[in-house]
Amino acid sequence: MMKNQALKPHLYNQIACHIETMIENGTLKPGQKVPSVRRMSELKGVSVATVLQAYILLETKGILEAKPQSGFYVKTALANPAVAEPSRSKPAKTVGLFSKADFVVNLLQNGGEKDVIQLGCASPAQSNYPLDTFGRLIAAIARNHPEEMNRYQVPPGYEKLRRSIARLGAISSCDFSPDEIVITVGGMEAINLAILATTKPGDVIAVESPTYYGILQAIESYGRKTLEIATTPQEGICLDDLERALKSKRVKAVFATPNFNNPMGSLMPDEKKRHLVDLITRAEVPLIEDDVYGDLSFDGRRPRPAKSFDKKDLVLLCSSFSKTLSPGARVGWIVPGRYLERVIQLKMMNTIATPSLSQMAIADFLETGGYERHLRRSRSTYALQLHEHRAAVQKYFPSGTKMSRPMGGFCLWIEMPQGSSALDLYERAIKEKIIIAPGPIFSAQSAYDNFIRINCGNPFTDQIDHALLTLGRLVQTPARSRARA
Amino acid sequence: MMKNQALKPHLYNQIACHIETMIENGTLKPGQKVPSVRRMSELKGVSVATVLQAYILLETKGILEAKPQSGFYVKTALANPAVAEPSRSKPAKTVGLFSKADFVVNLLQNGGEKDVIQLGCASPAQSNYPLDTFGRLIAAIARNHPEEMNRYQVPPGYEKLRRSIARLGAISSCDFSPDEIVITVGGMEAINLAILATTKPGDVIAVESPTYYGILQAIESYGRKTLEIATTPQEGICLDDLERALKSKRVKAVFATPNFNNPMGSLMPDEKKRHLVDLITRAEVPLIEDDVYGDLSFDGRRPRPAKSFDKKDLVLLCSSFSKTLSPGARVGWIVPGRYLERVIQLKMMNTIATPSLSQMAIADFLETGGYERHLRRSRSTYALQLHEHRAAVQKYFPSGTKMSRPMGGFCLWIEMPQGSSALDLYERAIKEKIIIAPGPIFSAQSAYDNFIRINCGNPFTDQIDHALLTLGRLVQTPARSRARA
Repeated sequence: MMKNQALKPHLYNQIACHIETMIENGTLKPGQKVPSVRRMSELKGVSVATVLQAYILLETKGILEAKPQSGFYVKTALANPAVAEPSRSKPAKTVGLFSKADFVVNLLQNGGEKDVIQLGCASPAQSNYPLDTFGRLIAAIARNHPEEMNRYQVPPGYEKLRRSIARLGAISSCDFSPDEIVITVGGMEAINLAILATTKPGDVIAVESPTYYGILQAIESYGRKTLEIATTPQEGICLDDLERALKSKRVKAVFATPNFNNPMGSLMPDEKKRHLVDLITRAEVPLIEDDVYGDLSFDGRRPRPAKSFDKKDLVLLCSSFSKTLSPGARVGWIVPGRYLERVIQLKMMNTIATPSLSQMAIADFLETGGYERHLRRSRSTYALQLHEHRAAVQKYFPSGTKMSRPMGGFCLWIEMPQGSSALDLYERAIKEKIIIAPGPIFSAQSAYDNFIRINCGNPFTDQIDHALLTLGRLVQTPARSRARA
Repeated sequence: MMKNQALKPHLYNQIACHIETMIENGTLKPGQKVPSVRRMSELKGVSVATVLQAYILLETKGILEAKPQSGFYVKTALANPAVAEPSRSKPAKTVGLFSKADFVVNLLQNGGEKDVIQLGCASPAQSNYPLDTFGRLIAAIARNHPEEMNRYQVPPGYEKLRRSIARLGAISSCDFSPDEIVITVGGMEAINLAILATTKPGDVIAVESPTYYGILQAIESYGRKTLEIATTPQEGICLDDLERALKSKRVKAVFATPNFNNPMGSLMPDEKKRHLVDLITRAEVPLIEDDVYGDLSFDGRRPRPAKSFDKKDLVLLCSSFSKTLSPGARVGWIVPGRYLERVIQLKMMNTIATPSLSQMAIADFLETGGYERHLRRSRSTYALQLHEHRAAVQKYFPSGTKMSRPMGGFCLWIEMPQGSSALDLYERAIKEKIIIAPGPIFSAQSAYDNFIRINCGNPFTDQIDHALLTLGRLVQTPARSRARA
């Protein structure tokens, strides 16, 4: 039943398809205004929110554009969107070592302060989590299962939870059994176990450039080395470059996030995923796949993980419920393929077991809490929030600013005009009580100096609007303030 | 207030002191019967349980001996206890690599099965944990603090918990502030962070021989090497041997459990702890101190950690609440001294944060749950349980069997007669649905083939009595069954 729910496109997607068809068959022409949100809502007998969601989706896809105080229009030149996306990245072909751990600590620690606008951590607002249901389930476990909650739920982990995750896997075309899953302390432990299971100290791991700073830290901490591969903000890792790196035999594992890479939000098409798996299979090199944003696709279709094309058990699929249900619960999971036995050993070595109550609460939520319904709400929310944040950046940042156009998740990757310094902006923004994630922490090289990542996980408020206005002003005035100093 | 409670010797300890004084001043002579438990209870106006506890403590110390159906007597020859303790260990002086991870997995996974007698894991029975209080506290948190519970409580960790741990530190003469503590996912993560923070791949870490298998696994998984140092079951690591190893300059870190080493239960006297800290300070080598059993001292006095003698911030003190409050909650902590900043970075890298609800529940228990009262009950319970398990081993195992005489914790280290095989016994015991921890997993070398560790964390029942009877029979018949095979 869960499967059907997920496969059925949500209402807003039907409306988006309807508009796309009208454009394709010429009923709606470039530059023309589409029916107002209210009018369409009456026509289709759906809520205003649903129509708005459809229009925002189409805007995100670059098909419609919003004009303030007027409405939505078909883009005049579909091939030339108003705000360009960053171009293909150009990492150096040498191995690197991450040395920016102090930034990461600041980023995460400042998240807890109340009067700070947190645009740095990739984390949703608490209002986007199902707090009430979760609290109710936890209280019931504490009352009814005190012993089960108190004792170790040893690796591979709580069975009921593994069964639910196997069902979620089936929704994304991944065919694995509960026995192939190991529960971890969040997605980060899953990634760490994957690194330890597949590589030795000194080994080189290929990653997308830019990529999540956590993996760069882990590679460094375990004595491995990073090789960064070029990406595009649309489709992620460039397979030609990866193929060349694999042929050189230096690479012992690949780490990638095909579904909504952090920080770019890129989405690799299915055919490219198949090709990626072909490449690593031919090279007999394991792929560590981070799928933590996969459930948050805006078009209502759950994108397949690369794991779904894996016939040789060489892909280690890692994910978690930190972006969807609860960051504080720290529940993640890994399907390690041929490394299963070793991952179980390493999991016991690292933290012995994942906290029992966390495992049980997530299991209960997946079984009875309405996970799919919650995801549909989250997807609409993040699509809307991303749209609002993008619009504000477009309004306040200097011309020449480029932005990614994510189709899922809640990270926005911004390329500021050449010469802008993200680290300089980071320092000055903190003084204004605004936290951003500076581009350089997403690479082990000296790169992305003029990039920042913005968290769009928060509802777009006046405070956030003002924070982005402030950031825009700071970006406009770096040279002068430097000259004075 | 907590401090006073802890420093005040418990009633049973006063009674034990009273008896010891009577022996020292000749009022009670070797071979003489001491007043019956009931009589002493009336004399002192305390419960029968308290007196029994005092007598068991004195028996554990080798001062009294129990005679079935008769009572307690002053040992006839105090210097020659009925069951000898294992002698000083003799590890090889070469570095080793642990390769028994599959055993460890079996050991932990079999713990979950209902019809198995679990003497393998060092873990108390659920009845020894404060389940009701804990459940009540958790339900209240879920009801009253849904947001705080749901979001990350990032490193160093939940402040209220760190404050309570600093107070516990003061009880054991350790002077550290809440800001010097990092909360971890159990004691094992604390140890892992300490290894990563203090050493590099290829580095040699000196450990007690025998030692907890988790540290051996961690050293191997991170690409470090193990150097085992001789120990005695009374006082732990032999400092002369450690000093020689440190002088050779090979050793980059030392791992030790001065308070109730697992598996032996050895307790290092304060003077030796001071000497240990002197040695590592002179060598400028960090000491990773595992103090997870320190709260479970039978004589009611909280033994000092070596950390309490540390003036140069070179000791990384690691502990957890898994043995005292809840294994399932997975809450541990580390005071990393001069490595604080690096440990915080590594903690974020490893698991980002410790689960929030777990941190909050332990904090509430420490503040309002009666932790000291619970500890006093636990100490009596484990002293009694160890006594009962030891008595049964003495009764059922062949003569020539030796045993440790722990003054805290719940691990019993048994040396079977030469020629006995612990691995053989392990295999045959599993067929009888009894799990034991075979000696070889406590070393990276080929050692302790005729040793086993028995968990005395369970109440002594007829089933356990029968399991020990069965084990004793299996130990008596290895040669014959081998000859037949």
